[in-house]
Amino acid sequence: MPERAVGVFDSGVGGLTVLRELQYQIPGEPLVYLGDTARVPYGTKSAQTVLRYAHEAAVFLVAQRVKLLVVACNTASAVALDDLAETYRLPVVGVIEPGARRALEVTRSGRIGVIGTEGTIRSGAYERALRAGQPDVVVHAVACPLFVPLAEEGWAGHEVARLAARDYLAPLLAQEIDTLVLGCTHYPLLKKTLQEVVGPNVRLIDSAEETAKAVALKLDAHQLRLPVAANVPTRYFVTDIPDRFERVGGAFLGASLHGVTMVNLD
Amino acid sequence: MPERAVGVFDSGVGGLTVLRELQYQIPGEPLVYLGDTARVPYGTKSAQTVLRYAHEAAVFLVAQRVKLLVVACNTASAVALDDLAETYRLPVVGVIEPGARRALEVTRSGRIGVIGTEGTIRSGAYERALRAGQPDVVVHAVACPLFVPLAEEGWAGHEVARLAARDYLAPLLAQEIDTLVLGCTHYPLLKKTLQEVVGPNVRLIDSAEETAKAVALKLDAHQLRLPVAANVPTRYFVTDIPDRFERVGGAFLGASLHGVTMVNLD
Repeated sequence: MPERAVGVFDSGVGGLTVLRELQYQIPGEPLVYLGDTARVPYGTKSAQTVLRYAHEAAVFLVAQRVKLLVVACNTASAVALDDLAETYRLPVVGVIEPGARRALEVTRSGRIGVIGTEGTIRSGAYERALRAGQPDVVVHAVACPLFVPLAEEGWAGHEVARLAARDYLAPLLAQEIDTLVLGCTHYPLLKKTLQEVVGPNVRLIDSAEETAKAVALKLDAHQLRLPVAANVPTRYFVTDIPDRFERVGGAFLGASLHGVTMVNLD
Repeated sequence: MPERAVGVFDSGVGGLTVLRELQYQIPGEPLVYLGDTARVPYGTKSAQTVLRYAHEAAVFLVAQRVKLLVVACNTASAVALDDLAETYRLPVVGVIEPGARRALEVTRSGRIGVIGTEGTIRSGAYERALRAGQPDVVVHAVACPLFVPLAEEGWAGHEVARLAARDYLAPLLAQEIDTLVLGCTHYPLLKKTLQEVVGPNVRLIDSAEETAKAVALKLDAHQLRLPVAANVPTRYFVTDIPDRFERVGGAFLGASLHGVTMVNLD
């Protein structure tokens, strides 16, 4: 019988930035990725609808006998994480708490900016996570709905992205933040442009790396870690035909994508 | 028993530009609008998935006993219109043929540009409709994926929209088109910016008006037209909670939206 995998899900390609970090930090662990590309994006949808989708994704991965569930989507982490952890009998890791923890380690002024989708920002999940760690932290959060389509269009370095970033980030810079949490798994693709716009004195927090660390710790804590072995291929599932996922996703994974299987969740 | 309505569907708010024109051109006809906001957008999804969603929307509207079906979404018209017309026993009108016909009436040089979503452009539906009307027409089609989020963000007049439009439309202008079909129901919101970018010698074709004319003709042809009476309120259904639809949709309808009901299609 094959070893049980770590299950990772996202609304589409964004979670591949987290998957990439998992492949790097826990080599030898089998991974299963699910992108809900037939219903992407989650960021503009209601908490109620995203919660339903998150459960459908979780049920699919549980049926694949995964040993740990990674919610590699900020919107789904923001609205569904507790509910998933209470429902399924396996450890669940989201992307918000690891990023928030790192931001608190890094900030000197205690003034932290957060950017994300409409759904993530509206949920207030980052403010809650940051205040839980440090009650007097000052948090400024802004939704940046154009960043996802800009990243998927391959326009991360385009003047359009720079102009949009200047507009979205101006109120955060006016608040003199020293740390900016990239609260969406698409945003690491825009890192260079964002760093240019915020300048060298603002530290960007990419939660992919922190999330992978949290997954490694959780595997150890639950004694689910496999002895490091040869790399095993990741299995990929999507809910629309794989064509666009394979084409757009390569930039997020940092490697070419193939052997993707289509499944139906609804 | 209430009079049977004209059913209109779209992936989200875009089709409201068509609905608005129907309210104007066929006053007194009851209208039912369905926005598939839980799965929006269709433009980045595969033909196979959009076809499935279009059937689910059609089945819902047929169950509402509509007398005519308007596919107020270019992507769904491009991939599903014939299939819907063959499946259901009622007249079906899409947005592509009316816009293409108008473009052929208007062009002098026979050089026509088309802009739309990835799905619409990839389908080649506009090229087919234009060539069916005039075999020697020269068609240049370009996908403009950022225009939908720009319109929904309320950034239609923003410098970011102007810059994106310049980039997308440059190859069409290089081809010396004299007519540009707005092949997505979101794009009428960008009309002013697009006209600035293409200059006064390129005529923009907004298919909403032409589609409403086609609907009126089809109702007459099938003797389904009601005698003009007092305006009746439109009924609205969406598949996610109505909050964002009501907030964003007003700009597309040109009026405030309320009394929207949530339904589940899948």
